[in-house]
Amino acid sequence: MQRYFSSKLSNNYLYLNDDDIYHIKTVMRMNDLDKIEIVYNNKLYICIIEDIKNNIKFKIEKEIDNINSNLPFITLIIPFLKETKMDLILQKATEMGVSEMILCPMERCMVKIDDKKLESKIIRWKRICKEASEQSKRLTISNIKTVKSINELKNLEGHNFTCSTQEKVKNIKKVLKTIKSCDRINLVIGPEGGISEKEENILNSIGFTSISLGNLIMRVETVPLFLMSIIDYEFME
Amino acid sequence: MQRYFSSKLSNNYLYLNDDDIYHIKTVMRMNDLDKIEIVYNNKLYICIIEDIKNNIKFKIEKEIDNINSNLPFITLIIPFLKETKMDLILQKATEMGVSEMILCPMERCMVKIDDKKLESKIIRWKRICKEASEQSKRLTISNIKTVKSINELKNLEGHNFTCSTQEKVKNIKKVLKTIKSCDRINLVIGPEGGISEKEENILNSIGFTSISLGNLIMRVETVPLFLMSIIDYEFME
Repeated sequence: MQRYFSSKLSNNYLYLNDDDIYHIKTVMRMNDLDKIEIVYNNKLYICIIEDIKNNIKFKIEKEIDNINSNLPFITLIIPFLKETKMDLILQKATEMGVSEMILCPMERCMVKIDDKKLESKIIRWKRICKEASEQSKRLTISNIKTVKSINELKNLEGHNFTCSTQEKVKNIKKVLKTIKSCDRINLVIGPEGGISEKEENILNSIGFTSISLGNLIMRVETVPLFLMSIIDYEFME
Repeated sequence: MQRYFSSKLSNNYLYLNDDDIYHIKTVMRMNDLDKIEIVYNNKLYICIIEDIKNNIKFKIEKEIDNINSNLPFITLIIPFLKETKMDLILQKATEMGVSEMILCPMERCMVKIDDKKLESKIIRWKRICKEASEQSKRLTISNIKTVKSINELKNLEGHNFTCSTQEKVKNIKKVLKTIKSCDRINLVIGPEGGISEKEENILNSIGFTSISLGNLIMRVETVPLFLMSIIDYEFME
């Protein structure tokens, strides 16, 4: 069943935005009495479509029991990258259960994004996250934030790690074994060429522990998928 | 240092194909005395470029000790998919250490490839695997094979598993804990909508155990990346 996210509930009806309504009418070609899943406030409802031709409405039929995720709250801190790489990361990390992604300019970023462009980029990135959240049947939409520099990462709550090409002993596996499902994890991923020594020093000084990802040599856009996969695996029951 | 694969060694010189020579001359703009890495017969050599202007040659300077991978020999059996999805899988699974990919038509495949097209597709797929193997500094190129139906999978050596949407108890985590690094693993991944019941029955009858991947709902092209990541993780030291 198709899933959508709503931000408005009133009198046993849930409301969707125009893009979703277009999708229901034109792409899915649904009809009155067809059912869809709508998530509102982290709760899942089965809704019935009414009056699709004129004033489309979504009546709540019933609430479905949540299957609580046993993943920790995961924040990936990601450098600005080329559009295709960024899109891949946002979509796949969302499928794999990331809670939040903080986009951050880093020294070796090949891409610079000025404030003017950033606003429209964020709208686009949020749409990718919403669609991937719907398709992978999440109860929350993965969140996007931006910061202006790594110095702004200093007050993040939880366990803080940065992927490092220097660290040889402490690897992600040793570290994940110490994490509990109720924890928060913040993980910094570097751009092509990795984070610079200066950045690694700053991150270490504000509480981020350097970790290795093992012997694999991965493209930058592969790293978040690798990290999310192994976190999912570690918390699989 | 840039890495290439060679299939010819003679009198302390290694030979590369025309595409690689074009890459060295025109893309990398290298010169005489520049060094490159060349893998021949699973061994890594540092070579020196000679006579780049006329009759380019690659003289072996020294052999480098191999770092043996502690991964098992992994074969992914993958349905025919749309080109962008296929390309992503080939590239990323190679980066993550897959040994071999067997492409196999399945009932719910949206894409059919006839024998005529298949030949040129295979050339293209092998090029993607070679380039990803070079970039991720492997000592082997991930191999591509094709079969005409799942029935041809019946004599594969090793542990045989198929991803299943029906199986609820036996999951990939329980199964991976029983594997040793010297083992061979063959893993079937279904197309959009999964393998059909009939196919799952056939696979079970020829020795493939059905396993679940947990509660995540992933796009088909995400599954191989997830599988390779968690196998890498399981064998990380």
